[in-house]
Amino acid sequence: MKYGIIGTGAIGGYYGARLARQGQEVHFLLRSDYEYVCEHGLQVDSCNGSFHLAHPNVYRSTSDMPQCDVVLVCLKTTTNKRLSELLPPLLHKDTLVVLIRNGIGVEQDVQQMFPDVQLAAGLAFICSAKTQPGRVNHQCYGQINLGNFSCRNEATICQVADDFNASGVQAGLVEYHEARWKKAVWNMPFNGMTVALHTQTDHLLKHPATRRLIREQMLEVIGAARHLGVQNIDESFADKMISTTDEMVPYSPSMRLDYDFHRAMEIHYLYTRPIEMAREAGFFMPRLEMLEAELKFLQEANVKPA
Amino acid sequence: MKYGIIGTGAIGGYYGARLARQGQEVHFLLRSDYEYVCEHGLQVDSCNGSFHLAHPNVYRSTSDMPQCDVVLVCLKTTTNKRLSELLPPLLHKDTLVVLIRNGIGVEQDVQQMFPDVQLAAGLAFICSAKTQPGRVNHQCYGQINLGNFSCRNEATICQVADDFNASGVQAGLVEYHEARWKKAVWNMPFNGMTVALHTQTDHLLKHPATRRLIREQMLEVIGAARHLGVQNIDESFADKMISTTDEMVPYSPSMRLDYDFHRAMEIHYLYTRPIEMAREAGFFMPRLEMLEAELKFLQEANVKPA
Repeated sequence: MKYGIIGTGAIGGYYGARLARQGQEVHFLLRSDYEYVCEHGLQVDSCNGSFHLAHPNVYRSTSDMPQCDVVLVCLKTTTNKRLSELLPPLLHKDTLVVLIRNGIGVEQDVQQMFPDVQLAAGLAFICSAKTQPGRVNHQCYGQINLGNFSCRNEATICQVADDFNASGVQAGLVEYHEARWKKAVWNMPFNGMTVALHTQTDHLLKHPATRRLIREQMLEVIGAARHLGVQNIDESFADKMISTTDEMVPYSPSMRLDYDFHRAMEIHYLYTRPIEMAREAGFFMPRLEMLEAELKFLQEANVKPA
Repeated sequence: MKYGIIGTGAIGGYYGARLARQGQEVHFLLRSDYEYVCEHGLQVDSCNGSFHLAHPNVYRSTSDMPQCDVVLVCLKTTTNKRLSELLPPLLHKDTLVVLIRNGIGVEQDVQQMFPDVQLAAGLAFICSAKTQPGRVNHQCYGQINLGNFSCRNEATICQVADDFNASGVQAGLVEYHEARWKKAVWNMPFNGMTVALHTQTDHLLKHPATRRLIREQMLEVIGAARHLGVQNIDESFADKMISTTDEMVPYSPSMRLDYDFHRAMEIHYLYTRPIEMAREAGFFMPRLEMLEAELKFLQEANVKPA
């Protein structure tokens, strides 16, 4: 299978390089790092063993790229609208587009742009950062779960999972809605609250008032998920997420990093869309709506003009 | 009538000095400013005309003060517990204690400390600050409303209002519960939100997301008030408070000032108590509960050890 990587950063750079190193045909879209990688290749520093790709297939524009069987979209959701111009050159009639990104409603919106394209969600559990041009630092974890959104032939998704597993990335198939909402149970409270209170996961859980608040926010997400038909989730999942986080190292989620580096935060898909979807189904999330408002307020003063 | 002033700061210093200047017998409790005021007197710089009290009756301890007919308590609610030792020397069997302070539940808690004492609420609408030892700067407004909590003879409260009016302070009588809750409609959203987002009233109302949030928080207070039996309040009061605030100069409420100067914030009576009272009556205030949690978190890192 031919793989295309849209967004060769911390996530796309890591997963794409793993597949390429294992022998898959992988085509990488780059922007600012294009010339550096042409000259020096792509370096992956990884807790599972570092490696170097001397001559990856790199492109400055998707119009120069071949049609691919699988496209991994690894851009932030804040650039979602650009997909309408970025994707078409890569698509043939059976291309599978895997959206490896945070939030709820991403697949729905991309499907509206491309009604016939086959989509899957990629849920990455990974700590990775692009530390320099052409250099990805993969610190820990790395697992990716794939959820079928509109793929007509599930065997294609299985094949992608097999390719990942063969390349040293643990991959599995999950139920789409359940997986997206379960991830939101962690993402919605922690991403926003670490920004709003300018802190980290461990401090939020140490203080009794915010620990309780985080749990209440998780219950709002769980309530919304159940209202929207996700069966396999209940209150105990909040407690599981909290105790998992208790055991994690103090952590700044991606939204906190975006805020610190004055980048646009993924408010739309992490908050606005799931809140809307829940409200349309008659379920309200007052605490997360409040957090959304706080984030919008903070964002306005924080983002540097591009 | 003999007046005692507990807390000769921005509020107590202003109101007490007005009464003393008009000829009332007023006894002031001071702490850090005691020696300065003994020597130099009390200066009031006021938008309604400045004046100086050369030799006010000042004390370092309430045990040196005479029994008073009316005691104005103008300390922050964060020092509420100290009243159990401060007040007794000033009380005779008919003393009226007027609690001039923010929040909900203050009168209830002081009444528990002193079951037989007569209490009234004082709701001050004033911009005033203590700028130097023995010097109060009264910038604007100044009105005080008095609400009967447990005064057996309402004529006493009328007398206090008359004394205020005679001394140039506009004063009126109001229904206790309605007045406290109506003030909370403004206080609860704006005090906390200016701290949580480190901003001022005008910015909160300028941004559509926070403007809507402030209104929703106001509706939570109005809902709680109605649940607790306050009749004369509905949604339109939120819109009135918002348009009033639109016309105010950009403003940092007292909690924001406390935060900026690393003082304890009045979280208990501005949030915890009204939230508890509403919950006991079966009404929930999720957004203000969340704000309370955020404030408790922020307070822990902010307050300098005394």
